[in-house]
Amino acid sequence: MSPTITGFDVKDIRFPTHLTGVGTDAMNQDCDYSAAYIALHTSDPALSGYGMTFTIGRGTETVCLAIEQLATRLIGKDTETMFADMGETWTFLMSDSQLRWIGPEKGVIHLATAAVDNALWDMYARTRKKPLWKLVSDFTPEEFVKSTAFRYITDAITPEEALEMLRAKEAGKKEREALVREIGYPAYITSAGWLLYGDDQVARLTKEAIGKGFNHFKMKVGADLEADIRRAKLIRSIVDDPANLAPGKVIDPKSIEGKNAGPTGSVLMMDANQVWDVQESIDNTILLAPTKPWFIEEPTAPDDILGHAAIRKALKPYGVGVATGEHAHNRMIFKQLLQADAIDVCQIDSCRLAGVTEILGVLLMAAKFGVIVCPHAGGVGLCEHALHLSLIDYMCVSGSMERNVLEYATHLHEHFVAPVTLNNNGRYNVPNDPEQGYSTHMKDSAFEEFGFPNGTYWKSAAEGKSNDISL
Amino acid sequence: MSPTITGFDVKDIRFPTHLTGVGTDAMNQDCDYSAAYIALHTSDPALSGYGMTFTIGRGTETVCLAIEQLATRLIGKDTETMFADMGETWTFLMSDSQLRWIGPEKGVIHLATAAVDNALWDMYARTRKKPLWKLVSDFTPEEFVKSTAFRYITDAITPEEALEMLRAKEAGKKEREALVREIGYPAYITSAGWLLYGDDQVARLTKEAIGKGFNHFKMKVGADLEADIRRAKLIRSIVDDPANLAPGKVIDPKSIEGKNAGPTGSVLMMDANQVWDVQESIDNTILLAPTKPWFIEEPTAPDDILGHAAIRKALKPYGVGVATGEHAHNRMIFKQLLQADAIDVCQIDSCRLAGVTEILGVLLMAAKFGVIVCPHAGGVGLCEHALHLSLIDYMCVSGSMERNVLEYATHLHEHFVAPVTLNNNGRYNVPNDPEQGYSTHMKDSAFEEFGFPNGTYWKSAAEGKSNDISL
Repeated sequence: MSPTITGFDVKDIRFPTHLTGVGTDAMNQDCDYSAAYIALHTSDPALSGYGMTFTIGRGTETVCLAIEQLATRLIGKDTETMFADMGETWTFLMSDSQLRWIGPEKGVIHLATAAVDNALWDMYARTRKKPLWKLVSDFTPEEFVKSTAFRYITDAITPEEALEMLRAKEAGKKEREALVREIGYPAYITSAGWLLYGDDQVARLTKEAIGKGFNHFKMKVGADLEADIRRAKLIRSIVDDPANLAPGKVIDPKSIEGKNAGPTGSVLMMDANQVWDVQESIDNTILLAPTKPWFIEEPTAPDDILGHAAIRKALKPYGVGVATGEHAHNRMIFKQLLQADAIDVCQIDSCRLAGVTEILGVLLMAAKFGVIVCPHAGGVGLCEHALHLSLIDYMCVSGSMERNVLEYATHLHEHFVAPVTLNNNGRYNVPNDPEQGYSTHMKDSAFEEFGFPNGTYWKSAAEGKSNDISL
Repeated sequence: MSPTITGFDVKDIRFPTHLTGVGTDAMNQDCDYSAAYIALHTSDPALSGYGMTFTIGRGTETVCLAIEQLATRLIGKDTETMFADMGETWTFLMSDSQLRWIGPEKGVIHLATAAVDNALWDMYARTRKKPLWKLVSDFTPEEFVKSTAFRYITDAITPEEALEMLRAKEAGKKEREALVREIGYPAYITSAGWLLYGDDQVARLTKEAIGKGFNHFKMKVGADLEADIRRAKLIRSIVDDPANLAPGKVIDPKSIEGKNAGPTGSVLMMDANQVWDVQESIDNTILLAPTKPWFIEEPTAPDDILGHAAIRKALKPYGVGVATGEHAHNRMIFKQLLQADAIDVCQIDSCRLAGVTEILGVLLMAAKFGVIVCPHAGGVGLCEHALHLSLIDYMCVSGSMERNVLEYATHLHEHFVAPVTLNNNGRYNVPNDPEQGYSTHMKDSAFEEFGFPNGTYWKSAAEGKSNDISL
């Protein structure tokens, strides 16, 4: 007898990041990094699964309500039956037609599905005493395909094609695993360039980031073009100066090929967070092009596939690429971004897509279309998730990490039982704890302080007290 | 001093339509037509506005919670200031960046915005003692443009182009109004072809529909292809038989041009409600083509713009068109469906799009691209809304109703204070009550019986009593 699902706790947790300017961009100048979180319990008191979706404050309670509605459907289900066919389990989660209507496969109900699917995958990995990336890496190609959501994307990739691709990557797995355990997974840093940071703060944090071994830097743009150009020049002046290079830092020329890198091998990325219309995106990015960004990220509405394709085409002569995906709400949007040649970089989000099951399909499509996957991270918990996903891509699907970079932001990792860590070459260490599944388990202390509205921080804030917190 | 917003009541109302097979299709075989409803109150006790979004049962409480979050933002706002710039008012509704994250502009938060925007437009029309369609028809082109959401669609239509289009339609307004008041707005009927209806019921309802003056008939397909073909042949055998023609029915040849009409001028439409992948849509519709449908509606995922374009291209040689839109979640999706030549018919939904303000932009784009607008209706309340929108399109934007048909379904109209009515030629009568705004006001008796979970019907159902209801 394997354990059955017996209950769940859904929690709303909000970190008052608006106090510090962390996470600020041209669209979101007032965000409290938050999560709608679920602990899914079983008849085995030692077995739970933890999942979440990322939000930025108000609205989290709505997602929590939707999570409750979905999780209720799992009560009584046998865990091993679910684990044996995670594709079918995902289809079951999507199959309440009444709940489907309020999406379909988008917005609150899809974010909620992400939290529940993530919790199931976390639980699955815990039962096998493996970190999630390793669980999936050890799948046979058949098991991988069985765990993938293919509905609505078979015109881009069939299960048969996927099997063939996965089989072709079986051979080098051992060597790849050894390599990434040794050198770590490549990362880039966003934390130096939040929109509301002053120039001095940006300069200081950029220098610190170089010191930590980073050579890919992302800045926020889109609120004030003159300020954007000034900040871009400021960052370029620091990262392009050989005097600032980290001692001993060696950059593989292949890792920066086609990325508009400066003389020291530094790469600059720009993120507009959807503030422009299509023509504005083109006009403004052309003005930013002299500072040599690798890409402009989220220039316009995330649903605008043809818009992104038009922007990419117009920017090609200027050597600037296009990236998007953190708000691409399901596999059909990624399918079309790839079909329309709209992106240079595919930025999946572990919580915007409905969990691992949907993401596996996107990884397969991106590899087939030859587009690198650089997940959205930052936020709270997203680095923890995304590292597993990048490792799955590297181990099973694309087979490469040479040109990839996974976003890294510095904050809020301390609230997780198994937070991500970096080596001193600016790369992620590989998660290795056999007890921590998808690394999504948040500490009790986090909920005690930042649970909303009853955590000590929020109660105290509601009473008008000033809170001495460091974020 | 004009009235200010002082409060609101948000209500969850569900009609147990799953008991009767009303509304069943290949994706939704168990739906309870429902609404997340808001009554928005002002400092003038005589002035309220009523708005809703359409749902199909579970999940309605989630939408209600989101409506509360949005409506709270309107407390204290001056009504006339809002009415003077409905475009800006809509932008304000969309501008809470924390709430935006859980969409953006899609799913629960967008459905909730629809309810609130619809309530504001209802209130605005009530203050002017005009039905909504007349309020907007009497706008100057400048007022119309000021009321429209243009963000993210300026690559398809600019406010300047829109002004020019609207000015060009000013001249014939009086004549158009007189004509539609006299002959009514064209309709088609869905109520004969719900998926779970038996052949006898379909045959009987089809004959009844002919008797009411209809010559456009929609059936549901997609669950069982053999059954689809059998039912299509059955409907064709009835509607193509001159002996069944309604006495005195005259069909304008232009109204059925290019619609695959049969010998008596009858048009058949098919709706697959998203059950197929792209290639399946093509293969299956080719098998249905001999029964001469005008179009296949929602063959695949509603987000799949390129998929719809591929399906349309492949079906062209078979004379079958493509329609979609009831789940197209914002103006950017419609923009792309039009840009990609993906649709023959643009099926806006009054509650899926975020209210009148967003819809005006879609009407303008459809007219510019020369695609007719035939709104999604049926459900509960959707016919009541959609008639106003079709009249706005006819009066101000496309200037034509010749080839249009507005969906009609027979059920649940009795719960509205000002329900739609048909003339005996199968056309909608023009709403004329100066006190009923957008016709969205639901009767108190509806909430007493079907309010969820405390209406008399649901309380009784929860106690296991059988309910004698007619739907």
